[in-house]
Order: sequence, then structure tokens, then C-alpha cells
Amino acid sequence: MPIRAERIAADLEAIAGCTLSPGAGADRPTFSAAWRAARDHVLAEAERAGCHWRVDAAGNVHVRPRGVAWSRRAWLSGSHLDSVPHGGDFDGVIGVVAALETLRAAHDEGRTDLPLELVVFAEEEGTTFGLGMLGSRGWAGTLDAAALAALHDAHGRTWWEAGADCGAAADRLAAERLDPAAYAGFLEVHIEQGPAMWAHDRHVALVTAIAGRRQYSVSLRGVANHAGSTGMDERHDALAGAAEVITALECLPDLLGDHAVATVGRISVEPNAVNVIPARAEFTIDLRAPLDRMLDAGDARIRALVTAAATRRGLDHEIRRTESLPAVRLDDALAARVRAAAAGLGLEPLPEAVSGALHDAAILAPLVPTVMLFVASRDGVSHNPAEFSRLDDVVAATRLLAAVVGTAPEPG
Amino acid sequence: MPIRAERIAADLEAIAGCTLSPGAGADRPTFSAAWRAARDHVLAEAERAGCHWRVDAAGNVHVRPRGVAWSRRAWLSGSHLDSVPHGGDFDGVIGVVAALETLRAAHDEGRTDLPLELVVFAEEEGTTFGLGMLGSRGWAGTLDAAALAALHDAHGRTWWEAGADCGAAADRLAAERLDPAAYAGFLEVHIEQGPAMWAHDRHVALVTAIAGRRQYSVSLRGVANHAGSTGMDERHDALAGAAEVITALECLPDLLGDHAVATVGRISVEPNAVNVIPARAEFTIDLRAPLDRMLDAGDARIRALVTAAATRRGLDHEIRRTESLPAVRLDDALAARVRAAAAGLGLEPLPEAVSGALHDAAILAPLVPTVMLFVASRDGVSHNPAEFSRLDDVVAATRLLAAVVGTAPEPG
Repeated sequence: MPIRAERIAADLEAIAGCTLSPGAGADRPTFSAAWRAARDHVLAEAERAGCHWRVDAAGNVHVRPRGVAWSRRAWLSGSHLDSVPHGGDFDGVIGVVAALETLRAAHDEGRTDLPLELVVFAEEEGTTFGLGMLGSRGWAGTLDAAALAALHDAHGRTWWEAGADCGAAADRLAAERLDPAAYAGFLEVHIEQGPAMWAHDRHVALVTAIAGRRQYSVSLRGVANHAGSTGMDERHDALAGAAEVITALECLPDLLGDHAVATVGRISVEPNAVNVIPARAEFTIDLRAPLDRMLDAGDARIRALVTAAATRRGLDHEIRRTESLPAVRLDDALAARVRAAAAGLGLEPLPEAVSGALHDAAILAPLVPTVMLFVASRDGVSHNPAEFSRLDDVVAATRLLAAVVGTAPEPG
Repeated sequence: MPIRAERIAADLEAIAGCTLSPGAGADRPTFSAAWRAARDHVLAEAERAGCHWRVDAAGNVHVRPRGVAWSRRAWLSGSHLDSVPHGGDFDGVIGVVAALETLRAAHDEGRTDLPLELVVFAEEEGTTFGLGMLGSRGWAGTLDAAALAALHDAHGRTWWEAGADCGAAADRLAAERLDPAAYAGFLEVHIEQGPAMWAHDRHVALVTAIAGRRQYSVSLRGVANHAGSTGMDERHDALAGAAEVITALECLPDLLGDHAVATVGRISVEPNAVNVIPARAEFTIDLRAPLDRMLDAGDARIRALVTAAATRRGLDHEIRRTESLPAVRLDDALAARVRAAAAGLGLEPLPEAVSGALHDAAILAPLVPTVMLFVASRDGVSHNPAEFSRLDDVVAATRLLAAVVGTAPEPG
């Protein structure tokens, strides 16, 4: 199937134009007008290429060639169109566009039965409802309707209220759950979002594992005292305690092993005044590692760090684990199929990688044989308007995807 | 002169009732309705005690016995009635009440010529216009009318707009500037706002120096990268840089010498998301020390710390000094007079202290012989609804004040 770079470039440009913050990066919260515009672009292209589509009860969009019934066993490929605030134009988007272009390429050749379903997952990023991969979790059944009803956006709307106009429907969620037998495998093309591939001049890589993630909300409470008249030894400074923990956390990944990372991305203090010792500090911790035993060791170490800093400073403390996703080993058989397709395209040897970022692929992997294809990110910059990947690399990943899904899947 | 504890207690209760946040501490921004109500209580009491009053162009209130002309050389005593948000009922207030009670006690004895002027300074705290001691600075001439016109409150009003109804008037500021020859000395009674006196069972102390203060606004700028896919060695994490500085700042006072303190009271990061490495961290530093050379050494060390942390992490940095107030040695002759009066009252030996907090006394000290009297603060808690001082201690400080100002000042 002839993959056409100029069509992929046009998709990327059109979707980049769908943003709530023109000139300041991609801003496409799930269910927003910008997100719907991007989704509509994809659906219009797919319809022109002879496809039909549906929205599942969790709010995800599914697209197949009209010649492929919804009940037929098929390959699944796609990613997401939602972005973090002021994010980049490639994160999620290239995975949708790669699958879209594969459908178009089949249509160009008059193939009406390519066994490929494009999926656009709703709310991968997690910035709108405080938790990520909601569409894939809802479809996969790892979040039920009640759990999604408990999540609210900044306007106080639940997932179901916000998504009603986009097809989300709590009452159909259980009935429309993902049927693993209907899919031969899931392939998600995505940008690396890290600097390693770009630095080593790698263009496309096969992802064999996705790091697990634990997230925490930490609260330290001391005493709001006068910054001038309270001696250093007499303080219960919540921010100083937080700074001690943040500094110690920087050393934690080295203790855990390769590919572990820890981040404090959010912090707030009270009363937040120049001349008052902070009485309260709230911050988040994000820990990732490719093995569950590394996450377990990190969890214990985080709790010990926070407790020690709080105890020594006379602070009350609370550590709440807000998310726990296991590390995911991707599918060996599908990986072998990708390697074989890469060899057929002369892409051998295909570099292999671990994903430090979580993806919808991590949600589907326990149910459907799953792999990912990474495309290099310039300097590893992501979640940022400066995010960039080479068109040639996106095209190469799309050709690899097309080569895999161009073959008929084995019966389930 | 018979100082009456029950009148002081009644004043404290009446003024505590003047708050914008009943039940949640003192909330009396300068020129607010609550502040005016507190001021009106003091003026009504003073008028009943045979006093007249005026407001100077900077917005400060002055009260004298009717028998003492505004032109006559007198003692000056007072403090402030404005509070931080959700502050305590003693900070500033006891200094106003001590002078008020002294005027009432003289009136009780039929004295119409006590050479004492009560002053209520406007906006000592600095939380309303972003800078403290505005009334005393305006009166002392260290801030001119244009500088006060450049300050805005949260409603966007300048000092002059906000204070017009309370007597502030830019056009009279220069003409009504403090005339040092008119005052024999300034005595400010204030709570310690630190834990030392309470911990050592001291009740009233003579303050012989006020620590100087330098404040800074620090900005660190790195790169907003993905928290999962950016290795620890590949990050430019602005919050991790800030945490390193905050942790190092805790050790700085020990290096500078006795009575130095350093505080980071305010911090914010961007984009402030759980799964994004912070690209930007902005925080404040408040450094205090009783000697200017300690402040100079601290200034150099702060700049070195920030520069080193930023350079090592590949962060852009900016350090802006937002305030610089010199350390103030208080007046030896007036201190000797206070010690003598204390001996006369059997308060010998009078404990001595350095004020870590700034006060209006620091503004007046270069112009008028100045000392302060500290009253113990329970557990050092201040700028907090839990702030508390013993009534007996306030009464003792008032008696000491009355003993000093009951004597005629020497001619200037």
C-alpha cells in the first residue's frame, strides 16, 4: 500500500490548527471544541476513504473500512487527539494519522476489506479530569461507569456530562466493553517523548515494555510563623520539608535501577506570603519503572523519605497514592511479526525501547496482544509547543504499521 | 499613673471584633471598614480621655492630650492596627493600646499635659500594597508621594485612592513630613512574634536592635518535559533547582551568625502538572540579620547558591532584590532611660532582645531616638489566629512606657 507523506503532513497541519490556544501550542482538552474539530477532520478523511465509524460508550471513536463489519476480527491501531495544555502537535496525533493513512492507502488501491480498525481514544493525557487514559480504561473495563461519574473537570462536570454530546453514555458502557476476541492485536504508533532515540540517530523503534506508574499526593503541615522572629531551630516549615523530599527524590531512581524516573510536577504552599513560614505544602510525586518490583521498592522509599523529613521537622504528613499502574510487558508474538515486517522493508535491525511514558497501549495490553512503535522526538521535548518529530520518521512508522496490518490476522 | 488592666482587656476585645473574617482571626487591611472601626474605637476612647487628634498626609493617626499643642515637643508611642489576612489579635494592637491606656491613666489623674503623642501607623504589614510600613515611610520621608502612587492594592487602587477617605493626601505629604525636633523619642510596644521570651519565661524585654531585611524574587527556567520518558540525567527541572536552593538556604543563617534567619515563603511552578517536569519555578527569599555586614554576606551567598544550582542544571535564572532595609541599632540614651524606669518599677534586670521582625520603629529610628518594648508571644506564634500574649505582660509593658513618658522630655 503506497503511504503518502504529503497526506500525513496535511493531517498533522490540520490537526495542529485545532487548538484552544492558537500560537501557543496544542490545547485540545477531551470533548472541547478543538478536540471535536480534530476528530471531525479524521472522520471526514476516513469517510472519503470509504470508511464507516462509531463512538463507543466510553467516548472513543472507531473507524473501519465499510467492507469490514464491526463484528469481524481485525487489527486495531490508533492513539489519541487530546493534549496537555500548551502541548505539542505530535503526541498522540501521529498514531491516529498513521492508522488513518493506512486506511487511505488501502482505499487508494481499491481494497475495501483491510482488516484494520482505527481508534481515537478519549482523554489519554489526564489533565482534564485528573486521571489519564479514561477512554481506554472505560472501554477495557478497568474503570466502570460509577468511577467515571466520580471524575470532574474544571467546570465541575462529570465524564458523562462532559462527553454526552460526543457519544459517551454511562448506561451502555458495560454492554459495549472491548471484546478481546474481536482483535488480532493492537499497534500504537507514538512519539518517544524522550531524548534517547534522537540523540542516537534512531528513527523508529519497537517498544517491548511500558513502565508502570505510581502517583502520590503528599501533604505536609507545619506552623505559619513570622519569617523574621522565628529562629531557624524553632520552625516547622512545610516548604522546607517538601524541598528536602524533592531533593532526595532526585536520587531515588538511581537506587531503583535502569529506566526509573521520579518527578515532582506540582506544588502549592499556604499561606504563600513572602514573610510567613509556610504552614502547608502539597505536592505530587510521579514514579515510573519498567518492573513492578522497582515500583514497590520506590513506594517504600518514598514513604520513608516523607515520614523522616516530616518527623524530623515536627510536621504532620499524609501520603495518598492517587494512581498505581503496573509495568507492562508487551506481546512477544506481535513483536516478532513487527520485526519480520521491518526486515521486509529493509528497516533491520529495528531498535528496541522501553516506554517511560504510559499510553493507552498499557491499558489494552492485558486484553489484546499489543506493541508500540516509537518515532524519535527532537531532543526529547514533549508536552511543549516545541515538540517535533521528522515527517520521514512518521512515514516510516506508518509503512511498518501498514506492512503488519496488511496481512490477514490469524483467527482468534 | 494607674494603669488599668481591665481597660486594656476591653480594648483588645473591642479591636479583635473589628475584622473582615469573624471567627477566623484578625483581617484588617489598611483603610478597610474593619480597620476604620478599630481606629474609631481608639479615637472614641481618646476623646473621652480629653484628647484631640489629627491624620497626617500619609494616613497615620496622631492623638495628644488637648493640653499639649501639636507644636510642643513630646514623646511618641504607638504601633499599627492593620493585620495580615487571618492574623492575630495582638500584633500591632498592643502598642496602640499601651499608649492609649497611658493617655487615659494621665486623664484619670487630672493631668491634661502629659507630653505623649499616640500614633497609629497605616499599613505596617505590607500585605495590602505589597510593601510594608507605608504610613511610617511616607511620614518619615523615605517614600515620596510618587512612590506611594505607584503601589496598588488588589482592587488596583493606589495608596492615595484607597486612603483618600481616611485622610491620606498626596499633595500635603511633603509639607507634613515628620519633624524630628518635635519628638523626644519613640517607644513602640509590640509582641515578640518569636518563641524565645515565652520559652525562657520572660515577660517584657527591651529591644536594642532591629534586624535588617533583604527580600528577593528568584526565577528559574528549565524545560517542560514528559515526566515518564525523560531520564533523570536529561532534565532541566526548575522545581528541583528551587528545592536545592531552599534546602541550602536553611543552612545559610548558621553561616552568617546569631539572629540571622532565611525563609522561602512563596513558590509557584509552571505548568504545575503531575506528569510534566516543571519548566519554571518562581520563589521569594526573605533574609534577616542584626548587622548589615551579615546581610551583605548573605546576599552574596544567595546569589552564589542560585547561580550554582541553575548552572549545574542548565536552568536560566534571575534574582531580583525586591527590598533592602538596613539593620537598625536602637537608641542607647533612651534605652538607658527605659532601664532606669524598669528599675524604679522593680522590673530589674530587664531582659534585652533583638527584633527579627521589622517594625515602624525601624523607619523612625534614623530620625528620632527609638527603642521598642517586647511582650512575650505564646510559643512564638504570630500572623496566625492562635497568636496570644498575657494581659499581665501587656500591662507591665504599659506601666514601663508610662514611667518613661511620665517624665518631661529634655528640650531638643
